[in-house]
Amino acid sequence: MSKVVNSLKEVIALSGLKDGMTVSFHHHLRNGDYVLNMVMDTIAQAGIRDLTVNASSFFDVHTPMLEHIKNRVVTHILTDYMASGLGREISRGIMDTPVQFRTHGGRPSDIALGRTPVDVAFIAAPTADPMGNCSGKYGPSACGSLGYAFADAMYAKKVVVITDNLVPYPLADFSISEDYVDYVVQVDAIGNPKGIVSGTTQITRDPVGLVMASYAAKVIENSGLLKDGFSFQTGAGGASLAAAKFLKEIMLRDGIQGSYGLGGITGYMVDMLEAGCFRSLLDVQCFDLKAVESIRSDPRHREITALHYAGPSVPSAVVDSLDVVILGATEIDTDFNVNVHTDSNGFIMGGSGGHSDAAAGSKLCMIIAPMFRARLPIVTDHVTCVSTPGKDIDVLVTQGGIAVNPKNAELKQRLVKAGLPIVDIHELKEKTERITGAPRHLQFGDKAVAEVIYRDGTKLDTIYNVI
Amino acid sequence: MSKVVNSLKEVIALSGLKDGMTVSFHHHLRNGDYVLNMVMDTIAQAGIRDLTVNASSFFDVHTPMLEHIKNRVVTHILTDYMASGLGREISRGIMDTPVQFRTHGGRPSDIALGRTPVDVAFIAAPTADPMGNCSGKYGPSACGSLGYAFADAMYAKKVVVITDNLVPYPLADFSISEDYVDYVVQVDAIGNPKGIVSGTTQITRDPVGLVMASYAAKVIENSGLLKDGFSFQTGAGGASLAAAKFLKEIMLRDGIQGSYGLGGITGYMVDMLEAGCFRSLLDVQCFDLKAVESIRSDPRHREITALHYAGPSVPSAVVDSLDVVILGATEIDTDFNVNVHTDSNGFIMGGSGGHSDAAAGSKLCMIIAPMFRARLPIVTDHVTCVSTPGKDIDVLVTQGGIAVNPKNAELKQRLVKAGLPIVDIHELKEKTERITGAPRHLQFGDKAVAEVIYRDGTKLDTIYNVI
Repeated sequence: MSKVVNSLKEVIALSGLKDGMTVSFHHHLRNGDYVLNMVMDTIAQAGIRDLTVNASSFFDVHTPMLEHIKNRVVTHILTDYMASGLGREISRGIMDTPVQFRTHGGRPSDIALGRTPVDVAFIAAPTADPMGNCSGKYGPSACGSLGYAFADAMYAKKVVVITDNLVPYPLADFSISEDYVDYVVQVDAIGNPKGIVSGTTQITRDPVGLVMASYAAKVIENSGLLKDGFSFQTGAGGASLAAAKFLKEIMLRDGIQGSYGLGGITGYMVDMLEAGCFRSLLDVQCFDLKAVESIRSDPRHREITALHYAGPSVPSAVVDSLDVVILGATEIDTDFNVNVHTDSNGFIMGGSGGHSDAAAGSKLCMIIAPMFRARLPIVTDHVTCVSTPGKDIDVLVTQGGIAVNPKNAELKQRLVKAGLPIVDIHELKEKTERITGAPRHLQFGDKAVAEVIYRDGTKLDTIYNVI
Repeated sequence: MSKVVNSLKEVIALSGLKDGMTVSFHHHLRNGDYVLNMVMDTIAQAGIRDLTVNASSFFDVHTPMLEHIKNRVVTHILTDYMASGLGREISRGIMDTPVQFRTHGGRPSDIALGRTPVDVAFIAAPTADPMGNCSGKYGPSACGSLGYAFADAMYAKKVVVITDNLVPYPLADFSISEDYVDYVVQVDAIGNPKGIVSGTTQITRDPVGLVMASYAAKVIENSGLLKDGFSFQTGAGGASLAAAKFLKEIMLRDGIQGSYGLGGITGYMVDMLEAGCFRSLLDVQCFDLKAVESIRSDPRHREITALHYAGPSVPSAVVDSLDVVILGATEIDTDFNVNVHTDSNGFIMGGSGGHSDAAAGSKLCMIIAPMFRARLPIVTDHVTCVSTPGKDIDVLVTQGGIAVNPKNAELKQRLVKAGLPIVDIHELKEKTERITGAPRHLQFGDKAVAEVIYRDGTKLDTIYNVI
């Protein structure tokens, strides 16, 4: 008995995929992913049209999707993140229906609740057995956690596992188990390892980044949250990693043992685990080879599903217990609303991912961003797009000072007392504009190209076409 | 943030439990379980009545349920197995509605499909954190796998975790994750370790058992299935364990590396893993301390859910890939139908558990049973109750010979060629009756006291009251 089907063409026929249905993909293979393109090409060749594609993220490697959009193979897109390769064209208005942006927590909740049902889920699996037990931990295309793929596997009507490393039954160290899987397809390669994970993620060497990282670590040190049991999430950006490095030094100096590191996990978080800064890592996605090696071999480093990570519809998710998260921004306004969807010209080049989930769940949500990028100020009167509402943001750290959201008066007092350079966010804006000049006002058309759906299912904002 | 509630009384109020609803329990604490009784007592004290209790098994420790049945706190029972403490009284007709017996695979499938919805699931958890991440691997009441509890946790409207070992958040090595859990209650003890797992399970020293075990191992050796990749399930009975021991010797002698051992796992299966007879163990329930220690520390020994183990509603379960299973019987008839529900007097004292799931999935299903017990023959014209249909049984091994189901002519040829003592099942029946005398015919009343529901949802048999 085996679920192995000879080809993608055959499995698409077997899956019952028809015009107007929904297919889904996960993004753990990141910018090395071959699977989304090969599946969509096969679907297009089969003459199926008018599909909804629900992908947890689109990277630049997925830019060939443009052809399927133009040919109306794909007429609806749901995602949590979209790199500029696709985003720039979407922003030009090439689709009739706006892209729906969700969050990494909102997406699996909406799938689980049946709000965004999936007909056929395609699971890129770095290792699988002939019955569909699969894992991201092993194989030439190893990516570590498969956290974002669980909801797809659990709730799609049909589930196809695509692997380039078929192993004998059973794959005992499965992540997604065979009881969710209908078909298995073996291909030559599911991805390019160079694009799947970084060899190593690097901390910043930029002086501005190092100043921000130093401030960030001091904000955490003085927040009242840095004590035994402390929990922490940070991204893979250079300044965030530098902040983690400084934080590690503080925790080791003061003998603080945190409870867990969360999120997309980098080698720097693994270092913190191994140094005793945390008891565990809870991992929805691995960012580098060290994280992949750790989740494979260290039982303290555990894969979690996206619902467990950040689902807003479940009794609790890990973000709900999170102390501190460090996040980025392309813009932040004087009400602390954050934009991570569009660039300075208004083109789509990102998305929330877990941004607004971690912001909503954490006790302290910190944005690290330079005062300006390419002479464009970070702080504005109104962000071009509200990705995360200001109510969930506690503090903005820039090289020119630290702005605390007035809703968090206690934090401000603590940071002032610690001698940190606290500035009012309006002052920070003016200070920046004295350097950069006033920003030009972006012009948009009247065609909605994307909707930003908050984790509770309400519409947070609409993105219009760039003219 | 915490889900910890002060008492069972409080959590039952919070859960919204009302007259006529369904509560569920799992049985990993076996005859040491305190949780079912303490919860049912609290529910009774709260004045709630007319409940359906869906428990994966009832052991003799649960005999106090009789009082709740008599007081009409409990008016419907769904289970996969019922020991004689409850079974004897059920067989006397104390309930108005027949008990519904399912299988360990059918139960989670019917819960998942919404055929037997659960309002409040009570999860006895040997270790849990304040948000409900929980595990059976650690703590004073450690039981190992929580395989049968997953469907309850995943599909019940409200989920209560009850633990006697509350640990700091997060329990990284969780089995059931917090995103399924609504409340956590800490109690002094969830069970008596002596009743939860055996210190060691023992192979038989009975000469009859050893003869049967020797035959069983030879049947497997000559079945054509014993080769690299071989997979195997057996029970915890003395003769089954002896068969496993003999099988291990054959596999080591011949250098055969099996793929997996399955099921309720004993220390003997762990020995086989450690000796290299299998690459992995897939474990829905641990039977002894050695199995608990192994699932805690050996990554080749993996917990699986009951759906993954044996679910008939899912694309595949592990039993579907199983080569050989050894099972027991209280009766087997000349059509190879097996009874494991009632004793020789017609009283309920068991149930399918995973019997008919493993029988249906395996390539070779072997029953081991002595020709007679207490002068009552095993082989009958018609079993008192069909627990597993004869179509799924391949061979019966007794000390007086081996009967092969005529549907499996190839197996018979192989065993004859190997010189094993093959007998026609009718001859075996006559041979036995020459020793025991003809069995008396049981008399039943006309009140249905239980229904046996096959794994596909159809009714297999009805059990009537004993008069």
